[in-house]
Amino acid sequence: MTEADFLAALRTLPLHPGALDLRDDAARLGELVLTTDLIVESVHFLPDDSPGDVAWKLVAANLSDLAAKGAVPEGVLLGYPLRDDKWDAAFLDGLRDVLTTFGCALLGGDTVSGGRSYALTAIGRATVSPTRSGAQAGDTLWVTGTIGDAGAGLAIARGADGPAALLARYRRPTPRLAEGQALAPHVTAMMDVSDGLLIDAERLAAASGCAVTIALDALPLSPKYRAWGGDALASATAGDDYELLFTLPSGMEPPVAATRIGSMSEGAGLTLTRDGAPVPLPPTLGWQHR
Amino acid sequence: MTEADFLAALRTLPLHPGALDLRDDAARLGELVLTTDLIVESVHFLPDDSPGDVAWKLVAANLSDLAAKGAVPEGVLLGYPLRDDKWDAAFLDGLRDVLTTFGCALLGGDTVSGGRSYALTAIGRATVSPTRSGAQAGDTLWVTGTIGDAGAGLAIARGADGPAALLARYRRPTPRLAEGQALAPHVTAMMDVSDGLLIDAERLAAASGCAVTIALDALPLSPKYRAWGGDALASATAGDDYELLFTLPSGMEPPVAATRIGSMSEGAGLTLTRDGAPVPLPPTLGWQHR
Repeated sequence: MTEADFLAALRTLPLHPGALDLRDDAARLGELVLTTDLIVESVHFLPDDSPGDVAWKLVAANLSDLAAKGAVPEGVLLGYPLRDDKWDAAFLDGLRDVLTTFGCALLGGDTVSGGRSYALTAIGRATVSPTRSGAQAGDTLWVTGTIGDAGAGLAIARGADGPAALLARYRRPTPRLAEGQALAPHVTAMMDVSDGLLIDAERLAAASGCAVTIALDALPLSPKYRAWGGDALASATAGDDYELLFTLPSGMEPPVAATRIGSMSEGAGLTLTRDGAPVPLPPTLGWQHR
Repeated sequence: MTEADFLAALRTLPLHPGALDLRDDAARLGELVLTTDLIVESVHFLPDDSPGDVAWKLVAANLSDLAAKGAVPEGVLLGYPLRDDKWDAAFLDGLRDVLTTFGCALLGGDTVSGGRSYALTAIGRATVSPTRSGAQAGDTLWVTGTIGDAGAGLAIARGADGPAALLARYRRPTPRLAEGQALAPHVTAMMDVSDGLLIDAERLAAASGCAVTIALDALPLSPKYRAWGGDALASATAGDDYELLFTLPSGMEPPVAATRIGSMSEGAGLTLTRDGAPVPLPPTLGWQHR
């Protein structure tokens, strides 16, 4: 089954009201926000990625989902397959780094033997917690930070030439926790960009029952990414940015640094423009599990 | 690293107070109880186990940890690697069965491609929630149900002759949720028997700072297990029972059906007896990840 088919089938099971019909990246239980990610060797990380970076990414990817809910991290539960002493020790060092950096505590977990996948459940607390589905026709679309850097970093990790700063964006992403908390009371919809800007924007629009238009020439690209030779379309279909994508009522400015990249309208689907004129969609909008 | 070494290292990381110093099977967040398990093909289930049974065991093993905390299940978060349509559909059927059977709802999760391990985080609610560490010298030691059936079932799954009822105890274990909720206000310590009665009793004793004595001739063995040829020592070192092991103040009777199998005393360590006389410990007390 594709991920979409599997999700549709899951929706026929007994669902908790806090599951938000499985149309969001996180669940709610009172003031708690819960999210879980499973990362697999050769799919979510490269076999020769350092163990510390794997730990970092596992935690950062989950905290990024909390960021999109405006939540303060409360704790994480780790599922860890034991390997050799050296790998385990390096993973623990990375885990310490990422937990300390983002002020997050370990709540529990499970260690197993065998397997090469790592599971994490993160729990946060939020009083106001946006969903993907609240965008309205007329809203403006924004993204924090710069996009495409992590996609370039992945190419560099696979052997391309390029600067360490781009590699670091792939290996040690930063969840936008403070930005998410500041944005939560103001946005109409919010999610993190993990699979690619275009596919994630299309998902936000679909969940909200709107169409979305994105201006390729408005996308925030870093000087390092441009110097590396990255273009806007590639940045918009690469994943692992962990920036926040959000919508605001027309005329409202965000309380944190962000770039306006498009708008929501009546209808459905994704339109791309360059210099105000529509351009064809690329064959792949981002990463999809199948 | 061994599981014990890894846990010791994890204890040097930033820990949440609700982590209970990682000495328990579940964490606490207010009235919520959280537990997570990662199960791996060829370690926790056999490659030819049916997908529905894998789903069942994944949920049941987690709910059993909630049972030991006297918690009412609130919901689960699933980490699922997609396979082929037939496997996925059968897994979903098993998931529906187990969620419906135990009145538990899906809260969220993550689907990935690749990998053969399954993660689940279960969340329950409890106002009184026992730990492993409250047993006192003088307490009596009890276990619900019968033990050893699942160990026999694993041997049958691997090709030995034997009745379907024992196989079912291995393939579709029952978490003792109602028993756990009834016991929680009365016990001094409680945990579920997942790795083996002896190893789990030794862990409970160690967490409580007591010694424990178990009478092999008192162990509750099912007629089917005895007829199959199972003995008490084998039952006490096999895992996957998912019965509740608990301690009560001397003289107190439990509010649910259970068997008194031993007692706690000053000191440390595990002593086994048969007909009142000490017998040597077996080389392995149960399942340990290394």
